[in-house]
Amino acid sequence: MRQVYFDNAATSHPKPPTVVQAINEYFNTIGVSPGRGGYRLGLEAGRKLLAAREVIADFFNCPDPAKVVFTMNITYAINFVLRGVLKKGDHVVTSSIEHNSVARPLEALKKSGIIDYTTVKADGDGFINPDKIRKALKTNTKLIVLNHASNVFGSLQPAEEIGGIAGDHGLLYLLDTAQTAGSIPIDMKRLNLSFLAFTGHKGLFGPPGVGGLCIDMDDETVLEPFILGGTGSKSHLLEQPEAFPDRLESGTPNTPGIMGLTAGFEFIKRTGLEKIRQHEMDLLKHFIAGCNDLSEIEIYGARDLSRQTPCVSLNIKNMDGGQLSFILDQVYGIMTRSGLHCAPWAHETMGTFPGGTVRFSFGWFNTHEEINYTLTALKEIIND
Amino acid sequence: MRQVYFDNAATSHPKPPTVVQAINEYFNTIGVSPGRGGYRLGLEAGRKLLAAREVIADFFNCPDPAKVVFTMNITYAINFVLRGVLKKGDHVVTSSIEHNSVARPLEALKKSGIIDYTTVKADGDGFINPDKIRKALKTNTKLIVLNHASNVFGSLQPAEEIGGIAGDHGLLYLLDTAQTAGSIPIDMKRLNLSFLAFTGHKGLFGPPGVGGLCIDMDDETVLEPFILGGTGSKSHLLEQPEAFPDRLESGTPNTPGIMGLTAGFEFIKRTGLEKIRQHEMDLLKHFIAGCNDLSEIEIYGARDLSRQTPCVSLNIKNMDGGQLSFILDQVYGIMTRSGLHCAPWAHETMGTFPGGTVRFSFGWFNTHEEINYTLTALKEIIND
Repeated sequence: MRQVYFDNAATSHPKPPTVVQAINEYFNTIGVSPGRGGYRLGLEAGRKLLAAREVIADFFNCPDPAKVVFTMNITYAINFVLRGVLKKGDHVVTSSIEHNSVARPLEALKKSGIIDYTTVKADGDGFINPDKIRKALKTNTKLIVLNHASNVFGSLQPAEEIGGIAGDHGLLYLLDTAQTAGSIPIDMKRLNLSFLAFTGHKGLFGPPGVGGLCIDMDDETVLEPFILGGTGSKSHLLEQPEAFPDRLESGTPNTPGIMGLTAGFEFIKRTGLEKIRQHEMDLLKHFIAGCNDLSEIEIYGARDLSRQTPCVSLNIKNMDGGQLSFILDQVYGIMTRSGLHCAPWAHETMGTFPGGTVRFSFGWFNTHEEINYTLTALKEIIND
Repeated sequence: MRQVYFDNAATSHPKPPTVVQAINEYFNTIGVSPGRGGYRLGLEAGRKLLAAREVIADFFNCPDPAKVVFTMNITYAINFVLRGVLKKGDHVVTSSIEHNSVARPLEALKKSGIIDYTTVKADGDGFINPDKIRKALKTNTKLIVLNHASNVFGSLQPAEEIGGIAGDHGLLYLLDTAQTAGSIPIDMKRLNLSFLAFTGHKGLFGPPGVGGLCIDMDDETVLEPFILGGTGSKSHLLEQPEAFPDRLESGTPNTPGIMGLTAGFEFIKRTGLEKIRQHEMDLLKHFIAGCNDLSEIEIYGARDLSRQTPCVSLNIKNMDGGQLSFILDQVYGIMTRSGLHCAPWAHETMGTFPGGTVRFSFGWFNTHEEINYTLTALKEIIND
């Protein structure tokens, strides 16, 4: 059976061949740990990491490549910020469209009596009104943390306007770019971000197992490390080194994964971010137009495609989402994701809790022919 | 120039070809995230993870594959235990031979006023006397945490005897197997381990970027998670799921790395752990015998090879270790690691702080010819 992959919001698939080649290159030409031995091959491994940091810093306009920190995935990057900067009595402003990677650590910090947080409710199309953010601020607010775009509904938030609010009030600002990095241009300076959390394996075309954090703030020492260990630096100290990236990077890094991710960034630069965005949005437009011809399909949000990622959630009336996703896979080989997408708040906001939706998320390697095939499949399922 | 790699205690290199093949197989035949979409390929990715847990549980005799938890590296696994089980007022017993992955988080917890810990001093050959562990116990001791073998001196600790002490006193017991997993048989039940922390990229032949934790204790709920987020399970809950492995695994896992690691375990089983151990120790014996013929070489410990990993630290009299390591690399292409090896306590114990040592660590793919070549090189350097 043919395979049509529409779950790019979970992980992009396939990867550009150069990404897998770069991973193989690690094993064939490097193979050793960076920054551990002082031999040439170890230094070469270290240079590969530094080159990756430079590519990423350049891509997101992060002023200092040393403040590009690698983690296993974006969830770790978000936790590093929330656990690292929030102290007893702090208040956080977030939104009702967040992923559990933000919601669960915030809730745990609240339950421990450390922080309080306010959840600004998104509107019926999944958008956050910056005025509501402003109104939610308190005297003890330290941080605004937001999803750049909903992983369920694809609604792209006014991150720059909210960055202005953070600047006006001297607040830290963390943006979760899981759904946008590689698909939408992101400039840390322009958005006034203190922290940009990214995941390597979605729009950035890297392998699973690599994510990270870009940091740009006046006093980075407020970001306390909480995974401590060997860094290959200042080994005589029992204290974690203060300097970045070692401050937040303990133990042996995922060098092959980082080399793969670097190739992903290079693929985007070579292809052109605008071209990728155009193609993905053309696919989305094509798909939504086809769905709109089918009255049994209910699409949630996605009415203004200039404020949308190539991701859309829908249901077929009187049909369970899990069943629809199952039939699409079993009968047509079309891979989608049904359920709550690790984002119960977002579904509550859109009135799709607890049943959830079926999410279709498109990527660079998808084609208009696949959209046609899927629209035909949906018609058949509806008429069956 | 030829390359001779003697830094296997940092990362094993090269990897068996099947390990790299397994990583490529992920990208060629799976490519998607496990446990996210309900489509067949996503379920297949989930089965690969479960199969990996089963292989690892079987290898270490961990009773429940669901309690094999994956992390980015062993440092994370150790931090997860120290941060997850220790509460205000707890006392920990550890040793003077630990790596910074244990020393730094313990010291941070102590400085925060949460715990206190006692460091049992190893003897002049790098061994811990179990009686000293017993004597260090206090009424509030909750945990014993030990390196199974020193990453600097290769001294293999009496882990089973110390496990008996943990059992006698109802204590939790965490073993850092970074230097032993894959080289020495380890049975969680026999050693009475509550937690076995492992790293994938050393003796287990996996890629960098994967480590983990095997858990076997009566009440696992004492292990609080502290990296929280999406798990693809119980998505409607704001609380992290209680069940393992989701309790400790948030965000997208490193599936290609885990598939590579699984191939590493299979390589060990196919080759035979005893055969690997025999070959590595033959290399060590050969090397040490050659060094003993050179009076200018001072070897630290490593006098009883039945209690040794294939790793040895030395210095040449009146020569800086960094210089020796540099010449070995530049002139002979022999890769070793000089300095403190992220373990200042261990060097203080052996009287090699702050100058450090030059570490030679051997692996399955090393040969006796490489040992001869290196002994000749050392002779030339001494006579130069």
